[in-house]
Amino acid sequence: MRFSAGIVGHRGYSGAELIQILRKHPSIDPVLLEHREDPGSGTRLRRPSPLRRAPSSGDSVRSEGLAAVLLATPPEVSMELAPIMLEAGAKVIDLSGAFRLRTPERYQHWYKEAHTQPALLAEAAYGLPEFCRERIPSARLIANPGCYPTAANLAIRPLVEVGAIDRAAGIVCDAKSGVSGAGRKPSLKTSFCEVTDNFSAYSVLNHRHVPEVLQVSGLDESEFSFTAQLLPLDRGILETIYFRSKTLGSAAELLELYDRRYAAEPFIRLHELGSFPDLHGVARTNFCDIGVAFDRATGRGVVVSAIDNLVKGAAGQAVQNLNLALGLPETEGLL
Amino acid sequence: MRFSAGIVGHRGYSGAELIQILRKHPSIDPVLLEHREDPGSGTRLRRPSPLRRAPSSGDSVRSEGLAAVLLATPPEVSMELAPIMLEAGAKVIDLSGAFRLRTPERYQHWYKEAHTQPALLAEAAYGLPEFCRERIPSARLIANPGCYPTAANLAIRPLVEVGAIDRAAGIVCDAKSGVSGAGRKPSLKTSFCEVTDNFSAYSVLNHRHVPEVLQVSGLDESEFSFTAQLLPLDRGILETIYFRSKTLGSAAELLELYDRRYAAEPFIRLHELGSFPDLHGVARTNFCDIGVAFDRATGRGVVVSAIDNLVKGAAGQAVQNLNLALGLPETEGLL
Amino acid sequence: MRFSAGIVGHRGYSGAELIQILRKHPSIDPVLLEHREDPGSGTRLRRPSPLRRAPSSGDSVRSEGLAAVLLATPPEVSMELAPIMLEAGAKVIDLSGAFRLRTPERYQHWYKEAHTQPALLAEAAYGLPEFCRERIPSARLIANPGCYPTAANLAIRPLVEVGAIDRAAGIVCDAKSGVSGAGRKPSLKTSFCEVTDNFSAYSVLNHRHVPEVLQVSGLDESEFSFTAQLLPLDRGILETIYFRSKTLGSAAELLELYDRRYAAEPFIRLHELGSFPDLHGVARTNFCDIGVAFDRATGRGVVVSAIDNLVKGAAGQAVQNLNLALGLPETEGLL
Amino acid sequence: MRFSAGIVGHRGYSGAELIQILRKHPSIDPVLLEHREDPGSGTRLRRPSPLRRAPSSGDSVRSEGLAAVLLATPPEVSMELAPIMLEAGAKVIDLSGAFRLRTPERYQHWYKEAHTQPALLAEAAYGLPEFCRERIPSARLIANPGCYPTAANLAIRPLVEVGAIDRAAGIVCDAKSGVSGAGRKPSLKTSFCEVTDNFSAYSVLNHRHVPEVLQVSGLDESEFSFTAQLLPLDRGILETIYFRSKTLGSAAELLELYDRRYAAEPFIRLHELGSFPDLHGVARTNFCDIGVAFDRATGRGVVVSAIDNLVKGAAGQAVQNLNLALGLPETEGLL
Repeated sequence: MRFSAGIVGHRGYSGAELIQILRKHPSIDPVLLEHREDPGSGTRLRRPSPLRRAPSSGDSVRSEGLAAVLLATPPEVSMELAPIMLEAGAKVIDLSGAFRLRTPERYQHWYKEAHTQPALLAEAAYGLPEFCRERIPSARLIANPGCYPTAANLAIRPLVEVGAIDRAAGIVCDAKSGVSGAGRKPSLKTSFCEVTDNFSAYSVLNHRHVPEVLQVSGLDESEFSFTAQLLPLDRGILETIYFRSKTLGSAAELLELYDRRYAAEPFIRLHELGSFPDLHGVARTNFCDIGVAFDRATGRGVVVSAIDNLVKGAAGQAVQNLNLALGLPETEGLL
Repeated sequence: MRFSAGIVGHRGYSGAELIQILRKHPSIDPVLLEHREDPGSGTRLRRPSPLRRAPSSGDSVRSEGLAAVLLATPPEVSMELAPIMLEAGAKVIDLSGAFRLRTPERYQHWYKEAHTQPALLAEAAYGLPEFCRERIPSARLIANPGCYPTAANLAIRPLVEVGAIDRAAGIVCDAKSGVSGAGRKPSLKTSFCEVTDNFSAYSVLNHRHVPEVLQVSGLDESEFSFTAQLLPLDRGILETIYFRSKTLGSAAELLELYDRRYAAEPFIRLHELGSFPDLHGVARTNFCDIGVAFDRATGRGVVVSAIDNLVKGAAGQAVQNLNLALGLPETEGLL
Repeated sequence: MRFSAGIVGHRGYSGAELIQILRKHPSIDPVLLEHREDPGSGTRLRRPSPLRRAPSSGDSVRSEGLAAVLLATPPEVSMELAPIMLEAGAKVIDLSGAFRLRTPERYQHWYKEAHTQPALLAEAAYGLPEFCRERIPSARLIANPGCYPTAANLAIRPLVEVGAIDRAAGIVCDAKSGVSGAGRKPSLKTSFCEVTDNFSAYSVLNHRHVPEVLQVSGLDESEFSFTAQLLPLDRGILETIYFRSKTLGSAAELLELYDRRYAAEPFIRLHELGSFPDLHGVARTNFCDIGVAFDRATGRGVVVSAIDNLVKGAAGQAVQNLNLALGLPETEGLL
Repeated sequence: MRFSAGIVGHRGYSGAELIQILRKHPSIDPVLLEHREDPGSGTRLRRPSPLRRAPSSGDSVRSEGLAAVLLATPPEVSMELAPIMLEAGAKVIDLSGAFRLRTPERYQHWYKEAHTQPALLAEAAYGLPEFCRERIPSARLIANPGCYPTAANLAIRPLVEVGAIDRAAGIVCDAKSGVSGAGRKPSLKTSFCEVTDNFSAYSVLNHRHVPEVLQVSGLDESEFSFTAQLLPLDRGILETIYFRSKTLGSAAELLELYDRRYAAEPFIRLHELGSFPDLHGVARTNFCDIGVAFDRATGRGVVVSAIDNLVKGAAGQAVQNLNLALGLPETEGLL
């Protein structure tokens, strides 16, 4: 069975990645929904690819027969378009932060603007399949997770679930991301000459992705320290997570814990002891790679997790959710 | 007054940086001491720079009138050459790890080989001027600090000195370095195609620079978690340090603590609250830049410190030590 | 129908790209042929991919039922293995320079060693399908073209074929390549710190790829100036070609000339006037993108061609040749 | 004797480089002239450098005693400010393209706007000291050369002067520049994710720097083909120049030609035969490095020239001109 899926925001980096993935997807035809003018890249091929295009509207959902619409748009645009697309009968997968937090108050606190769709916020399913798979197939609206929280929660929650962490000592997540995470809109902060040969921290202790980590991991804000940092590269997120444990007996036991939890997960890969994930290993894949170290004598543990921020951290996970929402095999088009 | 100083290992990255600095130094003439053949870069200018050259020997110390010799060599070469140069009457500043740790046992544990000069190890002064300035002028042999420990200790020790840290909760140091820190010898790990667009962790919880941090900061190994990571750039180290405090009242108080401690230090610069160091800010300088964040409600603190690993982390600090050893103004040739 | 194809040299960059492509190929199963020990990357996943492996031998051709063997090896290894694999009944596609030049003398002149398989050299078909497609299906041994010559000949030969170039004025090809073209063996020239932030020319007027360009384009050495240059990036080749014409009437006519020549070619894409290829446009694809400019008043023309050196310049073109050799659709696994 | 010099546009890349150079200059004190608001970099040090600041006005020239004003501004701002600063008694060195071309018509053709100061255009001296040194000391207004023309003319004019080039065959200049040449204003074309791992041609056969090359080299437009290309790095220009000669007898003779012409030039360095310039060699210096190849049998020649576009291509050359204009040693502050 074939489906059509609309993409709004296809000129941004996440949107372009959605197109890349869906063009090769055996069961889904992408349709580019034009929302606003954008200068594009300026290069023009003589025979450009013949993808379907339509305006970004409810009429397009009906006329193009869109089973789903993927919103690779800023939160304010997502809040505007999600009800229109839902009303027209499409499922909606939103890649912005608009529908990820549990309450309008929390949204307003972290995103500095009022939430205009509180009913949809209450209805939305959080789309981290490894921990929320059961709600996704029946949801009308799926909030695709943030890039940093995806790598963080996949590393942290297995530890919290089994009580392996000494929460009183706190958990540290030192996160590093490639520049595409900041989007395609030109700014001084993402200009080539400012980023190349550079590395810098931002949103230290107050990044808006923190509440997403807390919601899923079960940690309390007082227990969790998070710093975001900008790498001089295009794509990839690596997070180094530090914790203390009074219960773990060895690094092997720590690795075993992940192995059990993720035995059936197609997109989680574990590194053998002594080996750690890097960004080359996950680039252009939907994998989250995890590696661990543990010092038995002192109870200090480190977990390293890596994803491609545009794939498992955005477009790939959105297609994973799309597959679940449409009843397709979860890995279709993603391996 | 003018001095001559020899440089062994001048084709490596630290050695080349020493030449760069000393050629502009108003009181010191560099002399290149040839120790072993090295292919060089292959480019040949018609009129190369006319630096003095001599063999790497005690005779050269005497014939060239070298007041000091800087060893930008691997530890085993430093252990071989240091006694020869000292014997010939030169002061020695060693940029390797050979003379940094306090005991031969500790050296053997971390560097996986026996220390061949235990008497010199006992004699060596540790050359971190901000904390060990008094011993340096009279020392014959100065162990120039490691790059990671320099950035770590300058950030951590002021907190330990005043008891601002809740040591039971542990301190985390997440460290990132440019590739020049690995030296100039070709290897797969530092090949362009392996490093570009990549980021990876190594020596997780067991880096040989850890004991240097402990020696200077006063922390215990059980309190300190350290991860080294490789950035896809040439030069620069940034370390993000996480701690908890029961005594600090605010971020301003935390910043004030550094301001007092470093008021008279020429090479430490502080960022205003809300601003953080980056690698561009310290590239090709001998500065260590420090910025802080603190969440009063929960007692979580973050300190970010940045240096150029080849300057404050190697050659620049070596010249700072050289200035102290020769009775020159500490900042000469470095601002 | 399914085929098995062996890959020798699968730890090099071209070999790894072959694996990447063949794993997704619908009709071909890759088999890794182990020729020599190689340290690999050092990272170890818990559940590595279960690709078939076998020794690099004629027995493996028979026991694994290999229809073809792809040699991603240095020329001297290719000369050693090609006769063994052919003897065992496999077709051979060689990615090295061993079988590209027409005579042993020419090989010796440019590769500085005697050719050990002159009979095979005489037999080999040159695998640039856009110009040599007819001989490839029936050939036992196919010499996969060099990366620079592929981009050069696809741009130049259409001009030579129709006599559009004023050959007396000479043709210039200024070529730039990413670092993966130099292979995976560590060397100072391809070390990260030497390449990043750098750009340099090499083999000026005497690159060993020049005779391949001449053989295919029909130009004479005296007419053709070529410089190779190293870009600080992983993959991609862009060549800027300058010529003079007394016959062309406009840029549109120049573009039309390519459009006619390549109308049926699946892997050549043309840019509209005013737009030019870049490396992002061809990265990880088997396309060669071409754009043109022409100044009618003075007869000066420029053609820009871009490929991914590891795909159309190596592994992708090898699979294109493999498809032709096995009677599969030429584009299978490559779009 | 000490002078004060004003800098307008000090937040741009060329302006920042001017500050860097002048802060270390033994005879010149820089004064930052504030022309327009600019967001700056956002980082704030606790004790920022105490450079003098003043508004960008004629009054500031008088009150600050500015012997000269350096305009690191767009051409339209330079045309606005140059007469004001000249009127107030300062010499003006303009880093924009406003005063480089010889006639208002030529300016209008290439810069697509009317020239508002034709009298000043007629008066301006072109500031390429190696070829125009005599006029600079007495000029009120100096047009600092463009970055591409600096590297091109230093390589080409010595050949034209002695008639070494077969001009009928044409000269090709294939030019590559780092991203800082495009200025600091954010744009999609200079965004990190668009530039990294990429390489692209622009302004093929119609770059506005072409007429500057023709004016100085003496070539005719019909003889000269020029392509500009964007390198994925911060700073540096390398140009590869192709020509044919009927008079040169060898590569050694070609190199000798440059050696004679530039024997007394402090900022031109030649490479031995077989060695070629690269960008590392000239980064953060005011040097132009030149290397050559020549094939005697066919008369084909190649010259490679490299500069730092922000130093010899902008700020360094401006200070070289400033030294000449103020009667200081030409190399002061630049070696």
